[in-house]
Parts: sequence; C-alpha cells; structure tokens
Amino acid sequence: MITAQARAMTGPTAPFSTITIERRDIGPTDVLLDIAYAGVCHTDVHHARAEFGHTHYPIVPGHEIAGVVREVGSEVTGLAVGDHVGIGCLVDSCRECAVCRAGQESYCRRGKVLTYNGIGPDGQVTLGGYSERVVADQRFVARIPDALPLESAAPLLCAGITMYQPLRFWDAGPGKRVGILGFGGLGHIGVQISHALGAHTTVLELTENRRADAERLGADDYRTTGDLEAIRDSFDLIVSTVPSNYDLSAHLDLLDFDGTFVNLGVPDEPLRIDPYTLLTNRRKLAGSMSGGMPETQEMLNFCAAHGIKAETEMIAAKELDEAYDRLTAGDVRYRFVLDTSTIAAT
Amino acid sequence: MITAQARAMTGPTAPFSTITIERRDIGPTDVLLDIAYAGVCHTDVHHARAEFGHTHYPIVPGHEIAGVVREVGSEVTGLAVGDHVGIGCLVDSCRECAVCRAGQESYCRRGKVLTYNGIGPDGQVTLGGYSERVVADQRFVARIPDALPLESAAPLLCAGITMYQPLRFWDAGPGKRVGILGFGGLGHIGVQISHALGAHTTVLELTENRRADAERLGADDYRTTGDLEAIRDSFDLIVSTVPSNYDLSAHLDLLDFDGTFVNLGVPDEPLRIDPYTLLTNRRKLAGSMSGGMPETQEMLNFCAAHGIKAETEMIAAKELDEAYDRLTAGDVRYRFVLDTSTIAAT
Repeated sequence: MITAQARAMTGPTAPFSTITIERRDIGPTDVLLDIAYAGVCHTDVHHARAEFGHTHYPIVPGHEIAGVVREVGSEVTGLAVGDHVGIGCLVDSCRECAVCRAGQESYCRRGKVLTYNGIGPDGQVTLGGYSERVVADQRFVARIPDALPLESAAPLLCAGITMYQPLRFWDAGPGKRVGILGFGGLGHIGVQISHALGAHTTVLELTENRRADAERLGADDYRTTGDLEAIRDSFDLIVSTVPSNYDLSAHLDLLDFDGTFVNLGVPDEPLRIDPYTLLTNRRKLAGSMSGGMPETQEMLNFCAAHGIKAETEMIAAKELDEAYDRLTAGDVRYRFVLDTSTIAAT
Repeated sequence: MITAQARAMTGPTAPFSTITIERRDIGPTDVLLDIAYAGVCHTDVHHARAEFGHTHYPIVPGHEIAGVVREVGSEVTGLAVGDHVGIGCLVDSCRECAVCRAGQESYCRRGKVLTYNGIGPDGQVTLGGYSERVVADQRFVARIPDALPLESAAPLLCAGITMYQPLRFWDAGPGKRVGILGFGGLGHIGVQISHALGAHTTVLELTENRRADAERLGADDYRTTGDLEAIRDSFDLIVSTVPSNYDLSAHLDLLDFDGTFVNLGVPDEPLRIDPYTLLTNRRKLAGSMSGGMPETQEMLNFCAAHGIKAETEMIAAKELDEAYDRLTAGDVRYRFVLDTSTIAAT
C-alpha cells in the first residue's frame, strides 16, 4: 500500500490539517511520483470552500503538481525513474471520444477526472497535489524539461496551459495586438507567452501597481481600465483572466475588426453583453478551459525554450490557510507554491 | 432636378403617406435607378417607429432595393442603362479605412451612410427604397443576375447578405452541422444558402408550423426549441435570426466542440450567458452585421447559380401600415416586398 501525508480541509471553513492518504497500486501504465511542489490555484480555494457547491471532504487540493518519478509501471514508455514530471488539472478522461482522440482531454464530456475532488474510474474521490506523492496514468503526466526549475514549473501545469491554449488557438504572434486582462497568477504567465510568441502585448489592469512587473516580464504596453475609451477598437485578441463580475461589454469594445475576447473566468453572475457590441467589428466572445496533454507538453517545452517561469511565493504546509486568505484578497505575486517537503513536519 | 414619389412616415405613429422627394444630381460615379421593388425588413419598422431612438422624419425606409439602371455618370464602369441592379443597407462609407479597403464596408466605423435615416456626405438625411427612384455611387450598387427575378432578389440585398456572410465566414459546407434559429425573413434564405453550401442544415423553431416550408427549401432536419436537451452538443454552427430576448445560454449548449453561435439579432435586453457555457466545448459567440459590397455581389451570383430566392408577399403602397403590423406579429411568409409602381396611384 502506498501512503502519503497530505494537507486536507475537512469542511468548507475548517483549517488545513495533515492526514494520511492512500494512493492506488501502480498499474502497468501508471507512474508514481514524489511531489516536490504544488501551485495554489484560485480554483483550489473555490473547491475547498465549496464555492462550486459540490465538494467531497476531506479535500486535498492541488492541480499544479511538479515532482520526480519514483517508480513506473511495466508498460510505461518514455518516462523513467528520476525524470522531472508534472500533473495538471486532470488525471484521466474517457480517452475514446472525439475530443480525447484529438488530444483535447480537458474538453472531454464523458469521463473527465479532475485531479482532486473528482471521481476516478474506481469510484474513489481523487486527492490532489498538496501531498507527498501521487499515482497517475502516464497519459496525464507531462515531462518537465530540465531548463525549468520545478518550483516555477508547477504553476505552468494549470495557469500556463490555460493561457497558452487560447493564445495559440487565436494566433497570437507577430503583427497581432494582444491584451492580457488581469495581471495575476494567470496573467503574468500569459504576458510572457504572448511576448515570446511575438505579439504586441498590452497588460490591462485596474491600477498602475503592477506596471513595473508587467514591463519586466515582456509587456509592450500597460493600460489601466479606468480609461477604456482611449484604447477602443485596438486589439485583435484579449484574454481575460478576471474571475469576478465586470463590465464585459465595455471591454469587448476594445476589440478591433474580427477581434476575439477569450473569457477564462467564471464569475458568479451571468455575463451580460449589449448585442450590438458583438455586431460591431464582427467581434467574438470565446471560452477556453485549460488544455489537453499534447498541448501541455508543447507548452512546457515552449516555456523552457523561452525562459518562461511562474513568479512564485514559496509557502510551507502550515501557511496554506493564510495563503488562501491572501489569494482571495488578490495579495500574491504571483503564485503561491507549496513546498510539499514541509508536510511531514506538521 | 430628379424627383420621385415616396412612401414616408412623418412620426413614429403616423400612417404612411406619399411625399415627393428630391434625389441628388447624377455625379460622375453615380447611378440612377428606377426602383421596381423594395423589401420590407424588420429594421425598417424599428427605424420608422423610432424604436432605435434616433429617427429623422419624414422617414422613407427601404434598404432591400431592386431596380433597373436608368442613367449612369460619366465615369461609371461595368454598369449600363437597362441593367438589373440592387442597393442594400449602405449607400456610402469612408472608403479609406482598413475595413473599407478590405471590402467590408458594413463594418466601417468612420463614414458609413445607411440607405435611409442616415446622414450623407452632403449632410442630408438619406431616403430609402419605398420610392420610385434613387441615386447612389456605383460602389454601392450590385448587379442582379438575370436568373434572379427582381421581386425575389430585392430581399437578398439585406436578408441575403446578412445570412450569407456568417455562413461563409464560419465555413458552412460539407461535413458541417448548421442550425438556423428562426425560420422567417432571414432564416428562410439562410436555409437555402446553407443547403446550397453543402452543410447539414437544421431549422430550429418554436413550433412545428413551418416544417413543411423548411423542408421544401432544403432543411435536412427541423427541431422545435421545446426540447433542446435532445440536440445538445450537436452543432458546429448556429446562426440566430431571433430579434427578441430568449434563453441564449440554453441555445449555446447546442454547440459541439469548437462550435460557433452567430447572433444577428438586437434584442432590447442585454444578452445573458452563463460563463461556464462558453468554457464547455470551447464555444464562441460571434456577431455579424450584413456584409460588404464584394461579398454582396458574390452572394447574388451564388443565389442565381443555385436558384435561391426570397419567398415574398407582394404589397401595394397603401398596404405598408398593415404590413408593418403583420411583420411585428411575425405574420409574413416570408418577406413583404413593396411594388413601387403602386406609389404613383396613392
């Protein structure tokens, strides 16, 4: 039996505590990894505090996992003991539907298994990365190139692919004017990717506070959203990382002809759009949700080649509660990463 | 001085009356046409009844104009006296901006001149097609192929291009599953175009009432919107012609992976969308507004080649008030067309 110490919440308002969890036996195509770091994603907070309304307790969050292969199943190919690897939002999918066959597992509607708070094929609730080790099928384990430090690679497994997919799909690149709305955990990685893809990249933020960081990470321009009129009709692509309610129509007006606004956030109120806003300039509003495994690997290779890293604040296991409160308040530059080696001491 | 009899409304609730209007002298690149027919578009009603809030009275509506060239300016090329021609939603644009240079005049933001209730470069309010004749620059006059009867070609100048553009832009064709939401003035033309493009075409309507007509015009399938769950995740493209408020999120759920929902209507309330609906299946919501002149000509040629015609109810000048009331009630199969030869007798 494989056991691990993990940080869990036992209810929506309970503080984190350490529990011992079991991991499944290593099947033929499974990989056991020793988790080194786990990024703390805002989604973790939503699940842990039952803000999505369907949480199985105790919950062990964490879907930005970076670690080292400790053992592989008999049929595993391409991964070996000692390799640096990562796991993102999913640990399984149906593998048979059209989107799975296309390598777009994050859009699987039949059998997607979230890395935590999901239900696996064995009927067990999945437990995530705030833990010492995990077992997953090789299909859902990506290789982390040596050029990427594990601690700054961890957030790429969710935040990185969530930004990379829409930027690539909507052709961010030379000659394109890209806006990144919100310079936080997702946005600060998005700016680096957009810049590396060759697009003219503008950060759109509420205040001037993050201008220096944005410019340091590759932003060509930085605008506050207090004066949207000045930048009306001037973007080909805007990727919004804003998870809260805001005036979407006013931001859609920033798109030039044939421009695309990609919304990644899930605010608690419906999006509201003046229909004429979309008719003007033949604009479009698109959704995007993480990304599949082939593209996750492509993203990690791209980040390694271009020196793209998450900027992290390392935290110990006992600091998770405080980190959640700070994350909710937007007080993090720019991603908390849990050092899982500190779990044992709690 | 060129004069013409025209049907006008002098206020938002006034009945139509006949007035004498002046048309400008024929400039070097202008075309004078004798109007034979003018389609009655729902937008006419909105403008005439001041439902868009900015109407100049007296208003002469009509932007689905079909007629015969009577005289051409000295520099006109490609059009000659006696040719069958049409005018759509615009009679001018700035002609210099990027979208105009790309032949997408309907999206010009700098100098678009609506065919009626617009302000021309001369500062005069434009007067539309419920009239005996009109002068317009050749750039905004399309040739109507001989294969198209003028009376059924007229509605193509707005309804036709408004459907053709999104169907072409979003790649309706073989292997694509297209839904046409609303089988009315726009929808009944859209079905024919989608079918001719080779797409599997489904009409989505409130009731069974229009099934026979839809199938006759090329629909492969016909579904009522009372049971959306049965057709969830099953379309690549949906073009919505619905001008009123409806449950948009429930209809977005009909899109399969990477599907596109094109909204043509301008309901009086903001569109409301559950953000998760767009994230699922990487869906997108797009706007579309009529189309430019090169594509209008392409559409007319396409309709001529494929025998696509508007189904019309011919009305006389004195029947416009009744037609407006019936149009508002959705009681028309499928487009009223004004016979402008009846204006003189009023």
